[in-house]
Amino acid sequence: MIKNKKNKPSKELPLGFVDRQEKELLVRDFIISNIKEIMIKYGFQYLETPSFEYSESIGKFLPDKDRPDQGVFSFQDEKKWLSLRYDLTAPLARYVAMNYLEIPKPFKRYQLGTVWRNEKPGPGRFREFLQFDADFVGTNSLQADAELCIMISEILEKCGVSKEEYIVKISSRKITEELFKKININNNEQKLTALRALDKIDRLSWEGVKQLLGEGRKDKSGDFTKGANLSSSNIEAIEKELKKKSPETEDLKEILKLFEDYNFKNFEFDSSIIRGLEYYTGPIFEVNLKFDVKNNKGQIIQFGSIGGGGRYDNLINNFGNYEAPATGISIGLDRLVYALMQKKEFEIKQSKPVVICVFNKDSMKEYIKLQTILRAADISAEIYPGESKLKKQMEYANKIKAPAVILYGEDEIKLEKPTLRNLNSGSEQSIEIKELVNEIKKII
Amino acid sequence: MIKNKKNKPSKELPLGFVDRQEKELLVRDFIISNIKEIMIKYGFQYLETPSFEYSESIGKFLPDKDRPDQGVFSFQDEKKWLSLRYDLTAPLARYVAMNYLEIPKPFKRYQLGTVWRNEKPGPGRFREFLQFDADFVGTNSLQADAELCIMISEILEKCGVSKEEYIVKISSRKITEELFKKININNNEQKLTALRALDKIDRLSWEGVKQLLGEGRKDKSGDFTKGANLSSSNIEAIEKELKKKSPETEDLKEILKLFEDYNFKNFEFDSSIIRGLEYYTGPIFEVNLKFDVKNNKGQIIQFGSIGGGGRYDNLINNFGNYEAPATGISIGLDRLVYALMQKKEFEIKQSKPVVICVFNKDSMKEYIKLQTILRAADISAEIYPGESKLKKQMEYANKIKAPAVILYGEDEIKLEKPTLRNLNSGSEQSIEIKELVNEIKKII
Repeated sequence: MIKNKKNKPSKELPLGFVDRQEKELLVRDFIISNIKEIMIKYGFQYLETPSFEYSESIGKFLPDKDRPDQGVFSFQDEKKWLSLRYDLTAPLARYVAMNYLEIPKPFKRYQLGTVWRNEKPGPGRFREFLQFDADFVGTNSLQADAELCIMISEILEKCGVSKEEYIVKISSRKITEELFKKININNNEQKLTALRALDKIDRLSWEGVKQLLGEGRKDKSGDFTKGANLSSSNIEAIEKELKKKSPETEDLKEILKLFEDYNFKNFEFDSSIIRGLEYYTGPIFEVNLKFDVKNNKGQIIQFGSIGGGGRYDNLINNFGNYEAPATGISIGLDRLVYALMQKKEFEIKQSKPVVICVFNKDSMKEYIKLQTILRAADISAEIYPGESKLKKQMEYANKIKAPAVILYGEDEIKLEKPTLRNLNSGSEQSIEIKELVNEIKKII
Repeated sequence: MIKNKKNKPSKELPLGFVDRQEKELLVRDFIISNIKEIMIKYGFQYLETPSFEYSESIGKFLPDKDRPDQGVFSFQDEKKWLSLRYDLTAPLARYVAMNYLEIPKPFKRYQLGTVWRNEKPGPGRFREFLQFDADFVGTNSLQADAELCIMISEILEKCGVSKEEYIVKISSRKITEELFKKININNNEQKLTALRALDKIDRLSWEGVKQLLGEGRKDKSGDFTKGANLSSSNIEAIEKELKKKSPETEDLKEILKLFEDYNFKNFEFDSSIIRGLEYYTGPIFEVNLKFDVKNNKGQIIQFGSIGGGGRYDNLINNFGNYEAPATGISIGLDRLVYALMQKKEFEIKQSKPVVICVFNKDSMKEYIKLQTILRAADISAEIYPGESKLKKQMEYANKIKAPAVILYGEDEIKLEKPTLRNLNSGSEQSIEIKELVNEIKKII
């Protein structure tokens, strides 16, 4: 490889960002077209908000700080801070507040878009993601929450994920809310610390979580995390409540009844689902894949959730006094693509062009004639796009995995009979132009 | 409208950014799916680079400045500057340099993606755009340049733009290059100032341009722009050369010959095409729409180009010593969408859901049954997503332009005969469940 001289700019990408190749993009397109089809069927409106919002609008501007949170990409524009959106929910809340008089009530919208997180980059940690979100705004009906779970299941199944290969886990913030009330935890900071601890059950198991609910926990590296300082009787009460196998809150009972009406069985109640700390107020859900997914070292990993969501009845009220209880779901498309590409049955056909070799620039008109005939028949075809000897042209055709090349030299042109070389079998045949389309269709 | 209290965040968008609604997005999807289909047919690879690049990699970091150009959105990350891409060509150059050993040569790729410009916002000036780019890298063959013009024409025609409604304008940087040589302009700064002047022919006509080629020009507001300080004989020579009606450079003669071979006639030679100042070295082209486009005040405007491109043989060498002469085209999709939406014949069908009204939450199972039947037949349908009286439900159905509502009250449920109300005609009919799909298909 040619060495960079001084003053040459970097050829590398910043950490946390990647280039995406054709196969991955085609799988993503397949998922997106399924999503769009189902969104129409379910009656959601298609919306797109911009990449940037005022930082204050998406809740990342704290009055006591001189710049927005570190976790977002922000920059100062005249006197205000702008931030790249870190999710699609905060911009939806801004959109609803801005257009409250015009939107239908309830309002159902979906959005596909990139979100950015300015986190410390590390291996496998990305700083931009493609997300799909669908939300109901302005409804208390739990039928909306249930419908989101049905909808995401239909999307996955349309993408080839069988019922055995995914599960929707469901819980409710009402469980912890009622529990904290019962055991008299009123301090907000303490509640948040407790929720943050409970969110780590997957990783730390109950033993670690209980330390975090109590005095705190020292991890393997020696770092100490302060705990919620709950009494041991309270910690026991929490553990007991969250280990219950069936839900006792009214909202979950109603949703389970709706699932029955939908004849939807691919869910499980799991009170360890917390879904971060932000704004949830009611039912919360998470979608997990159950088939094996490997990391780039070929090791099977615990892949975890590809998305989730829940009810957030107060978020839009940050902008004023709106009647806008809401519920939504969010799917990380890059993660879903990554997993789907590993499924054995999953294959997207990449269409590769037939290459028409260039023997002599003066015969370009003849090559163009063939190319036009093939393309008119919807066959991917190209005239070799460079100016090289035939050997290089064949190397190129192999490199791009062309199914065939067409050799149309002086003699062939005279006879109007191009030679078709099948690059899989290596076989060649001389063909009348009018038979070319049919012969190529046999081998692609 | 509810008034914002103090401490409520802004509900507005930063200047230069917009929300996009369903109709616009569906038109955009239609264009994009046509583009993708044609890209496959033409044998281009699908690639996606990330939003961020190191500022230095995309040429926006000047060693004598302490931050990148104002025209880009930039962030400091540890010790390096990152910028949001301002086009898709600079990231392609970085990609080619980074993957030079692996890519096919020549390399044909296309990309669809947002680009950002941190320009002073003003009316109708946006700061993020969706672009489509297609490029050939590693080829001197002018067949590549010709192919790009053919390809963009096929895309436009597939989108419903007739041959009479667009034109590809073509010129070459070789014209000005040879001209500057002939009249002995060697000073690079002077060349750039002259090119910048010539780029304004559309706006200023020859009279204004000649001032800018000479001593300079004072505009209506009194602002003075310094000129290139060319002698009047040189200015005359330039005007004479650029007013020629047919191209005299070898590259354009060859391309015109190729257009003939392609039987492509929808172009014109126009030496006033300059295409900015950046990196072009050979043929340059621009795509203009010829049908009437109105601004948001209903006035017909000179819409100008929806994109263009040209040959840039030296750009990738910024990264090192690569053999990567290249040519590419770039289309501004937002502008194309804006124009297409105004074409009389152009209509995208928005699919709207049939609304199943909710009389009693206890009958949800029955509503779900109907909804499942309709969706299984690929009919867009939804159970009214809120908890309101029937009057509000009807208002909602009208607001979202539902084609029909289904009334399935207690009596109808007993008889298993829902009532279908056509919201266009206002007519109602009582229908057996098994006839529902057929009856609805008649009215949507």
